[in-house]
Amino acid sequence: MDPAHLQEALDGRWAHVRRDARENLHDPDMLPVYGESMAEARERVTRAARTLAQSGRVGFGFPKEFGGEADAGGSVTSIEMLAFTDLSLMVKAGVQWGLFGGAVQLLGTRRHHETYLRDIMSFDLPGCFAMTETGHGSDVQQLRTTCTYDPATQTFDLHTPHEAARKDYIGNAAEDGRMAVVFAQLITQGTNHGVHAWLVPIRDEDGNPMPGVTIGDDGPKAGLLGVDNGRLTFDHVTVPRDMLLDRYGQVASDGTYTSSIENETRRFFTMLGTLVRGRVSVGGSAASATKLALDIAVRYGNARRQFAAPGEEREIVINDYLVHQRKLLPALARTYALNFAQAELVSTMHDVQTAVHEHGQEIDEQAQRELESRAAGLKVAQTWHATQTIQMCREACGGAGYLQENRLPHLKADTDVFTTFEGDNTVLLQLVAKGLLTGYRDTFGSLDGWGRIGFVADMVRETVLERTAARALIARLVDAVPGLEDVPMLERGWQLKMLEFREKHALEGAIRRLRKNSTTVSSPTHPMAPFDMFNDVQDHVLKTAQTHIDRIVLEAFVDGVDRTTDPAARTLLDAVCDLYALSTIEADKAWFLEHGQLTPARAKTLTATVNSLLKQLRPHMTTLVDAFAIPADWKAAAILEEEPGRQEAMAARDAELRRQHGAGTPEGTATDLDVPPGQ
Amino acid sequence: MDPAHLQEALDGRWAHVRRDARENLHDPDMLPVYGESMAEARERVTRAARTLAQSGRVGFGFPKEFGGEADAGGSVTSIEMLAFTDLSLMVKAGVQWGLFGGAVQLLGTRRHHETYLRDIMSFDLPGCFAMTETGHGSDVQQLRTTCTYDPATQTFDLHTPHEAARKDYIGNAAEDGRMAVVFAQLITQGTNHGVHAWLVPIRDEDGNPMPGVTIGDDGPKAGLLGVDNGRLTFDHVTVPRDMLLDRYGQVASDGTYTSSIENETRRFFTMLGTLVRGRVSVGGSAASATKLALDIAVRYGNARRQFAAPGEEREIVINDYLVHQRKLLPALARTYALNFAQAELVSTMHDVQTAVHEHGQEIDEQAQRELESRAAGLKVAQTWHATQTIQMCREACGGAGYLQENRLPHLKADTDVFTTFEGDNTVLLQLVAKGLLTGYRDTFGSLDGWGRIGFVADMVRETVLERTAARALIARLVDAVPGLEDVPMLERGWQLKMLEFREKHALEGAIRRLRKNSTTVSSPTHPMAPFDMFNDVQDHVLKTAQTHIDRIVLEAFVDGVDRTTDPAARTLLDAVCDLYALSTIEADKAWFLEHGQLTPARAKTLTATVNSLLKQLRPHMTTLVDAFAIPADWKAAAILEEEPGRQEAMAARDAELRRQHGAGTPEGTATDLDVPPGQ
Repeated sequence: MDPAHLQEALDGRWAHVRRDARENLHDPDMLPVYGESMAEARERVTRAARTLAQSGRVGFGFPKEFGGEADAGGSVTSIEMLAFTDLSLMVKAGVQWGLFGGAVQLLGTRRHHETYLRDIMSFDLPGCFAMTETGHGSDVQQLRTTCTYDPATQTFDLHTPHEAARKDYIGNAAEDGRMAVVFAQLITQGTNHGVHAWLVPIRDEDGNPMPGVTIGDDGPKAGLLGVDNGRLTFDHVTVPRDMLLDRYGQVASDGTYTSSIENETRRFFTMLGTLVRGRVSVGGSAASATKLALDIAVRYGNARRQFAAPGEEREIVINDYLVHQRKLLPALARTYALNFAQAELVSTMHDVQTAVHEHGQEIDEQAQRELESRAAGLKVAQTWHATQTIQMCREACGGAGYLQENRLPHLKADTDVFTTFEGDNTVLLQLVAKGLLTGYRDTFGSLDGWGRIGFVADMVRETVLERTAARALIARLVDAVPGLEDVPMLERGWQLKMLEFREKHALEGAIRRLRKNSTTVSSPTHPMAPFDMFNDVQDHVLKTAQTHIDRIVLEAFVDGVDRTTDPAARTLLDAVCDLYALSTIEADKAWFLEHGQLTPARAKTLTATVNSLLKQLRPHMTTLVDAFAIPADWKAAAILEEEPGRQEAMAARDAELRRQHGAGTPEGTATDLDVPPGQ
Repeated sequence: MDPAHLQEALDGRWAHVRRDARENLHDPDMLPVYGESMAEARERVTRAARTLAQSGRVGFGFPKEFGGEADAGGSVTSIEMLAFTDLSLMVKAGVQWGLFGGAVQLLGTRRHHETYLRDIMSFDLPGCFAMTETGHGSDVQQLRTTCTYDPATQTFDLHTPHEAARKDYIGNAAEDGRMAVVFAQLITQGTNHGVHAWLVPIRDEDGNPMPGVTIGDDGPKAGLLGVDNGRLTFDHVTVPRDMLLDRYGQVASDGTYTSSIENETRRFFTMLGTLVRGRVSVGGSAASATKLALDIAVRYGNARRQFAAPGEEREIVINDYLVHQRKLLPALARTYALNFAQAELVSTMHDVQTAVHEHGQEIDEQAQRELESRAAGLKVAQTWHATQTIQMCREACGGAGYLQENRLPHLKADTDVFTTFEGDNTVLLQLVAKGLLTGYRDTFGSLDGWGRIGFVADMVRETVLERTAARALIARLVDAVPGLEDVPMLERGWQLKMLEFREKHALEGAIRRLRKNSTTVSSPTHPMAPFDMFNDVQDHVLKTAQTHIDRIVLEAFVDGVDRTTDPAARTLLDAVCDLYALSTIEADKAWFLEHGQLTPARAKTLTATVNSLLKQLRPHMTTLVDAFAIPADWKAAAILEEEPGRQEAMAARDAELRRQHGAGTPEGTATDLDVPPGQ
């Protein structure tokens, strides 16, 4: 089957950006060099970033006025394509143009744009995004760095009060960064107005730290060796007033603070909401790395043979083993599902941000919160999928998968931190859960440490699951299914209904338990500490978030299949969608059995159906990875570079030798079930 | 609670070896150096291996006559302790003294011992174990390297017929090895007698490859950078007749082949069975790495704080979060369970090998097969547990876990290949399954590629699960439980019975399906290819193996608790055992629900019981890792080296600043459920 139509379905709305990247991003510096030192990796990646800047392909997200494309979706897509090359380069680019440049663009005002954006885009001004501190990663509202205004000098005093307040894990800091967007508590006229951002020089033109600025190096990491992560400490550093990125909060020369958004928490989350693009990019980048790993593992599994069937001479290709298929194919199906979910997210993000930033429309708060929640959920799904799938691919490629030259070690080590940065996955699941529990009506970031649990009870009336893509299509499919029993498992409506039921039930259960705990909290006889009230149901709450993510991903896949016009591609995608849905349900069989949505007999049928889908999809494994259309020179996996015909030549030699002197261990007693030790 | 008694329970029969290691292995070269190059790592590890040899602590497994201890259990234990230091050193030592030295010792005869053992033990003769080929890892009976005898010269011709026959991934080959134990097909008088081993010089005294020997380098790997893995190719290399390691097969000067074991497959597996110690060592080493990772993660989780409860100023220690406990504690419980299972395995292996090698007893074939099966199962369990747990620990330590200086990156990268070498885990599970299916009666390594499936039907009569440790105790506990319903889940007998039931049921189901397929194979109307006959049930067969492993691990834990005399330690171990048993059952709730061994109501109770066990064990987390008794200087994790009191000092400073200018975001609206992007 021609993978071109499949590829078209996967490439989506910004296919032209993907095509351009495939055709034009071929700087050898963009690929990992196996065995290089950390210093060499950093140099190479900095060089590659500079080359990338010169290619003009880094301006997607910036305003046209400064040479950009004002194309948020294109910006994310270009990062996703970069993620097929050295992930250190993808992160370096993301820091420079996504986080640093993005913060100047979206939190700064005109004077900042005019002064700095062009140099940021050209990489003449390398910079950092200095938010995280050693002591505070997830709870950013509790940052300890302070920035205190002095009207006498009309400057701020930026200060790191102790070591845990040190900015840490900051990309572009240890070597290259000349300026940093620094997040700190804004204090003026004796009042703390919460976290804001300033543009602060950290190195002079000679590369030396500015006065009062101490720059440290995080040293070698598990991966991403080409990214110079470092630490920044500020010792009463003077920052001019106009270096406050003042789009959402301003300080007058006399120190008076003003903001168009009165509520501090709302202001803080509004500021940060503009930076959602980074989280969307991380999810999409994880997906690219996953696709590359699967590409390598599927091709390896087509070539690698071990153990012969009785009576056969030629050994069996490992992709023919059921258990090997069970490793690769459901992961491939989930990758396809996430591709469509990500495409939908990027599209939504693009439309929302374009409306606000390009057309000056008012922010639709609820749409913004849903977008952030969706971005969080898909960041979680794609990064955990990446780390687990790449691990599985390494093991599926045996010893060869352990050699750096076959790419998988870098993919694993580099993506490992993706489950932590841009939001720790566990904490992000809570963000998603909060959105579900409050129906996104809470725009203040509340459920404030669980104290105001009554707020939850008020906020949630009837649980109506918001359908996402192709609402009409989904509704039609689901309504066509009368119940959940006796419906064939390959009925799309049944699959959707199962995931909807699970999400609704989990959500209702979480709400019920939280309400119960909230009344218990104030019980005179059995008071429950507020912490315990929430902690007690934390696993249930996170489970709810995960069921939600599974459902919206399936809906996106269903929509993606529906939009596919080529009949052969559509048929294949249909089967892959079946595999995604059924393997997702199978993975949580316990829940469905426990809640009566599967009988024991149906549970057995489910496993058998998954196995028969594996058989059905086995012949299409190569087509499914071909459709990722990863250019051969991006793969940097020696195992894929074998000359054609070599395996056959060696097999012929083996047969000849066997004819000469016999097979050794007599035929019929070779077994796949014994593995000698020591190898 | 004083961890000393707990430690005693964990240290087991070779506690003296562990104590000696803790007290005396403090060569700084033994620890990873973060940021070193591959060349530096190799040099340091070779140096450390030499120092280790000089300490005299490498001879545990060798005969007393040559300076060894003839202590197989001590040998494995010493490797387990080494695995707390640089895992490259553990692998280097395992290759030199376990595989290379072990092969010379157990496959060679007196003249080989007298000529080489002392130099091997002193490291004056570094050597390799050259079994694996590029084309054949798991199916070692299909090695392609040949070794053909020529009576005219009384020498063998060792030859690599094509590139896939190249010895690959051979530790100690790329730099240091002077000789190799090479496995190849023995051909004499026109007949191939199967795989045998020869001792072959590969480098001369100046370090140059011997004539006809080509040595390649596998290059940088994902981890284990201190191990010089390489490739060996032989171009008609002349090997003197007396270099055949001829304990189990001999070639006379005229080329006549003789062996005390007539059947070739039996001979091959007997040879390799002697090397089971390597597989046992890998499992135990994985366990050590796991313990170190958990030690770091638990201590980190006791210090790291994020998000405050409502009304509180001090943030919450992350080990107090339910979901964080759910990550760490079940893994800790499983680590304890595996500790006792490994201890039992090592003890059995020691007794079996001592009886055979020291006291000259006949090999009890069934005991040997059970030992090999047990070694395979625990290798699988401990290595997958290591890789998954270390991954979880890295994520649980956030960004700090990603810095090499905090040890976790090395632990993850180094242990990653443990699921592949010494037997690919998936293939090993099949070995375990085969033992179950045939009741270990098959001593010939058959179920030969599934052809002789009738053999299975003959071999398996009634499925009686062999109980392992403390048979009387286990029987008593299980018999005390009348059924499976309505029995309290904290009843040990119920837990054991559940796992026994699952194993028995899975095994019976696998046999039933294999028999059914075997009749289908020869059906004239619906013939099933022999490959499909087995492939069709491969997932069920592997599942059966996993249920068996879970059961025998629980039995070992139960026995271990029973042997613990100190009351406080025993009580704590009891609770940990409960957590192991119940979290194991919970992880496979689907199976138990599907087969009626849990009702939906009981399934809910199960989760609630696990959660309450987490609460109960939370205060003991530090004690549980203290009991691993890992010396502080072995940990090499910067995050553990903080000065006491520093966190308190910084918290006091924070409180002071808060008093001065307010908390920033008003109290009561800080939430743990929002995570800003970009960090």
